[in-house]
Amino acid sequence: MNLSDYVLNFLVKKRVKKVFLITGGAISFMVDAFSRNKKIKYISVGHEQGAAMMADAYSRIGPNFSCTMVTSGPGATNLLTGIGCSYFDSIPSLHICGQVNTYEQQSSNKSTFNVRQVGFQETDIVSISKPITKFSYKLKNENDIKYILEKCYYLATSGRPGPVLLDIPMDLQRKTINSNKLKSFTPPKKKIKLSNIELKPIINKMDRSKKPVIILGGGIKYAKAQNHLKQFLKKLKIPIVTTWSGVDLIDHSKKNYIGNIGVYGNRAANFTVQNSDFILSLGTRLDTRVTGGVPKNFARDAEKFVIDIDKNELNKKRGLHIHHKINSDVKYFLKQINKINFRISKNEWTKRCIIWKRNYPIILDSYHKIKNFVNPYVFIDYLSNILKTKDIIIADDGGHLTWTLQTFRVKYGQRLFSAFGNSPMGYSLPASIGASIANNNNRVICIDGDGSIQINLQELHTIYKLKLPIKIFILNNDGYGIIKQFQELYLEKRYEASGKGVSNPNFKKIANAFNINYTFIKNHADFKKIVKKLNSKLPEIIEIKLKKNQKIIPKLQFGNPLEDMSPLLPRKEFLKNMDVKLINRDKKIFEAN
Amino acid sequence: MNLSDYVLNFLVKKRVKKVFLITGGAISFMVDAFSRNKKIKYISVGHEQGAAMMADAYSRIGPNFSCTMVTSGPGATNLLTGIGCSYFDSIPSLHICGQVNTYEQQSSNKSTFNVRQVGFQETDIVSISKPITKFSYKLKNENDIKYILEKCYYLATSGRPGPVLLDIPMDLQRKTINSNKLKSFTPPKKKIKLSNIELKPIINKMDRSKKPVIILGGGIKYAKAQNHLKQFLKKLKIPIVTTWSGVDLIDHSKKNYIGNIGVYGNRAANFTVQNSDFILSLGTRLDTRVTGGVPKNFARDAEKFVIDIDKNELNKKRGLHIHHKINSDVKYFLKQINKINFRISKNEWTKRCIIWKRNYPIILDSYHKIKNFVNPYVFIDYLSNILKTKDIIIADDGGHLTWTLQTFRVKYGQRLFSAFGNSPMGYSLPASIGASIANNNNRVICIDGDGSIQINLQELHTIYKLKLPIKIFILNNDGYGIIKQFQELYLEKRYEASGKGVSNPNFKKIANAFNINYTFIKNHADFKKIVKKLNSKLPEIIEIKLKKNQKIIPKLQFGNPLEDMSPLLPRKEFLKNMDVKLINRDKKIFEAN
Repeated sequence: MNLSDYVLNFLVKKRVKKVFLITGGAISFMVDAFSRNKKIKYISVGHEQGAAMMADAYSRIGPNFSCTMVTSGPGATNLLTGIGCSYFDSIPSLHICGQVNTYEQQSSNKSTFNVRQVGFQETDIVSISKPITKFSYKLKNENDIKYILEKCYYLATSGRPGPVLLDIPMDLQRKTINSNKLKSFTPPKKKIKLSNIELKPIINKMDRSKKPVIILGGGIKYAKAQNHLKQFLKKLKIPIVTTWSGVDLIDHSKKNYIGNIGVYGNRAANFTVQNSDFILSLGTRLDTRVTGGVPKNFARDAEKFVIDIDKNELNKKRGLHIHHKINSDVKYFLKQINKINFRISKNEWTKRCIIWKRNYPIILDSYHKIKNFVNPYVFIDYLSNILKTKDIIIADDGGHLTWTLQTFRVKYGQRLFSAFGNSPMGYSLPASIGASIANNNNRVICIDGDGSIQINLQELHTIYKLKLPIKIFILNNDGYGIIKQFQELYLEKRYEASGKGVSNPNFKKIANAFNINYTFIKNHADFKKIVKKLNSKLPEIIEIKLKKNQKIIPKLQFGNPLEDMSPLLPRKEFLKNMDVKLINRDKKIFEAN
Repeated sequence: MNLSDYVLNFLVKKRVKKVFLITGGAISFMVDAFSRNKKIKYISVGHEQGAAMMADAYSRIGPNFSCTMVTSGPGATNLLTGIGCSYFDSIPSLHICGQVNTYEQQSSNKSTFNVRQVGFQETDIVSISKPITKFSYKLKNENDIKYILEKCYYLATSGRPGPVLLDIPMDLQRKTINSNKLKSFTPPKKKIKLSNIELKPIINKMDRSKKPVIILGGGIKYAKAQNHLKQFLKKLKIPIVTTWSGVDLIDHSKKNYIGNIGVYGNRAANFTVQNSDFILSLGTRLDTRVTGGVPKNFARDAEKFVIDIDKNELNKKRGLHIHHKINSDVKYFLKQINKINFRISKNEWTKRCIIWKRNYPIILDSYHKIKNFVNPYVFIDYLSNILKTKDIIIADDGGHLTWTLQTFRVKYGQRLFSAFGNSPMGYSLPASIGASIANNNNRVICIDGDGSIQINLQELHTIYKLKLPIKIFILNNDGYGIIKQFQELYLEKRYEASGKGVSNPNFKKIANAFNINYTFIKNHADFKKIVKKLNSKLPEIIEIKLKKNQKIIPKLQFGNPLEDMSPLLPRKEFLKNMDVKLINRDKKIFEAN
């Protein structure tokens, strides 16, 4: 057995069924091992960037984690944007890079340390990837392979998950190894500190509070704690809000689900957290897209209990005062708290939040009346109505991500996500491939933009080749919409490089070139064409015509507290929605508007 | 004037006329400055990877250096493969990345040092890019901008050139600055050590040698020393060979030009260096693609004088014995040596090399007889005949790069290059854009492959949008040819992920989708269609049908000395081409074959 065979066997044991790759000189021996292993397959893709994003989504949807294989140099650096997606969103993935032979490496010899390159296509991917991986390592000895793979796996999947990178020189890929003689990695013992003694005060405080809120973050998914959450939420009749990453953790038809919070959140959800007096935050790092640009204004009257597996996130000083920092795996936390017998209901407060939800819908009546374009809020609402409970929906970035997250009403079981923290253009198309493959080649809904889809356009061929029923919606507003809105607001409508100097290829012709069916939706009446396309077994491109200057509404303007989204409400109406105590405290902020 | 305006003014002073960019939140203020400056324009492209490769080629062709601008996070990481091209090939370029506001950065606060991300799309691009840039820096204070830009420029263009990266936080991009009050960067004084005293012995040695050779490397171009080289070569009637990077430094019709050396070089050129007793190597790092995999076998009877600006390259210990290491800018070296009055002719030796050139042509008669496919050697030869002296030819990587470099006969004035050291798939298409723009939107010949072109396919729209007369040849051998050849040789024809599992889109339909003319060349008789396409003012895609298993011939097999390329010559014939002294010394090597 050579080292490459050992690596594949290891992946099989870790339930990786498909590896996303492009071959190349320095990874040839590793790729060759697939010819001798029937339990694992590869998907040869169009660009290594696509491979990394497919792996990211494969890991989000699949049972365990994921793997890419690429050649040295450009093969490896092409992965980085995809690795960034996994790093910032805590997704476990393993990236195996081929490297030049050990003896032709810079580091093989003191005299070559400062040379730019020794071997052909040699690049120090370990140093380059360090800032965006949990562990990045170049294999030095074939007999370390078991130890290193186990360490990689442990680090990728334990604690706060994330990507790891393993650089394997060509000469080591083909070394014969004796798998019985390899040393193992022993994971450090987990320190679990939580106990009932610490949990009861949280329940008591929640019970005694008048306006408690639970915030659900993506960390609950990454901890695979959905069932524990479900059990926990059964004990509570209080308002629930989510972050964007946490948006698919709850059925949106649940009465006490108020919406998602943040700079591009819902008014109702933002009113809810901003009026609350108690917050239990589960698995979210509460970044500024969630808290607003001035974190000290976030839920400023609430006693905050924050559960986070990453103690650096708890200890960061960004103006947000966290009263109780609980450094724990959220799954363990929920498991423990579920052992306690309690029920908490806050009917009046919940009702008030539900009224906000009713009073401030995302979709305004006027949106339906548009004739010559599609309003994206109306479109996402339509899609939300017809999609099934097992559907996976992946949005890209910018405007169409925002419209989707603001509007889509998740049915429990659906998955709705994007690469939230990194938010690259071009994620949703390859991610849809990875997700579909992880989900038995089933349907995936890809919500893309006219700018974004061009980034990984080559993967349309991968979709065609694999005959995956991916439904690609291109929300076409002719340019970078979210930037246009920024320029309108702050740069006197100088649309440099967003509207001006930017144009699109003809997507109908693009679809045709890749042998993918194409449908054009020019207005709301055309929606009726969509169902058939969704039900086909084939990939489909459906282009949706938007207004060029379609806005994101509502949106928090910089400097304002989370409750005061733009377009600003009439002051009288706005003040009615906020507690007098809070208004008085922040008089200055509101008087400015 | 704000900081962004200052940056553009600086670029204008440094003769940058076009900046390659994609906008995004964190670079918005910088991009906005273009609305106020008429002397510099931007090209909005399809993928930041394309932007970096365009900048690389713009710098190779243009008068000075080049610049990209991208947003934070994925915008920045998308640059890295292109930055790698500039780093390994010593190309000066400046990459300006937008970064999140100063106060929302990890580094703004001790408590956030170990957090994965603070601001949205924040990524530590400075650390990530460090291993492949000469200088990478995040601006901390707006008043440092002049100093830092000057330092960036100095480092990019001085010594051994290379890319630099400047990360500019959003808040600093919009700061008002007083350009009179900014401090300047003072470049360190250059230490020039060379003098006639040291140069004369080189000339004397060359004169006394029997079989001298000059090796021309890409460093001569990067030092902009072409004219000095021309003057120097006039003094010499001795064999000249080049590396791949140096291939366009000499007119190939010159009698004493023997060819390019290396693993994929010409037999004649390899015989020349391997039989030589004196080598003057100018501006090449003599890596293993040039010397062969066992550097100690390279030109083992020659006294070697190596001129390199990078002393690390001179001092690296890789088995190659360099007798005289001259750490100098090659331009300065040539200038000094040109001051000396001398002429050296070695007619008999030169004649012998010329005979090798005649005896071992790349193109064999049998290649012309192929009917149902195009032989790439015949095709490149054809192209070489009809291209003009001002043409720029850019090859991508793998097979088609090799066929091109083995066959193409450069007319002085032509430029022929690739991203040699990094050699990413997908370079030639965006590089052709950058080169054409640097050359007044003139014709560029892009030699691409069926696998490679997919990597940056989105830039076909950029070509269409800008109406650039780029002639894109797709040498289609249905898969990754150079890997297939490797697998045939070393992996018993198991074509995993090179032939198997790999397929291409229909390039005719792709061309049509991007509104680019398409021509199919199915055999040699079809070549007549090419001239018209080359003369059109439009972009053209010309697909060339190759055999699936088209080989690279000749090629050095691993372990063999440079003179003994495969297919191996009959031993008798081979031995006749080598000096007896050398044969006796390396008996063992040759007896093995």
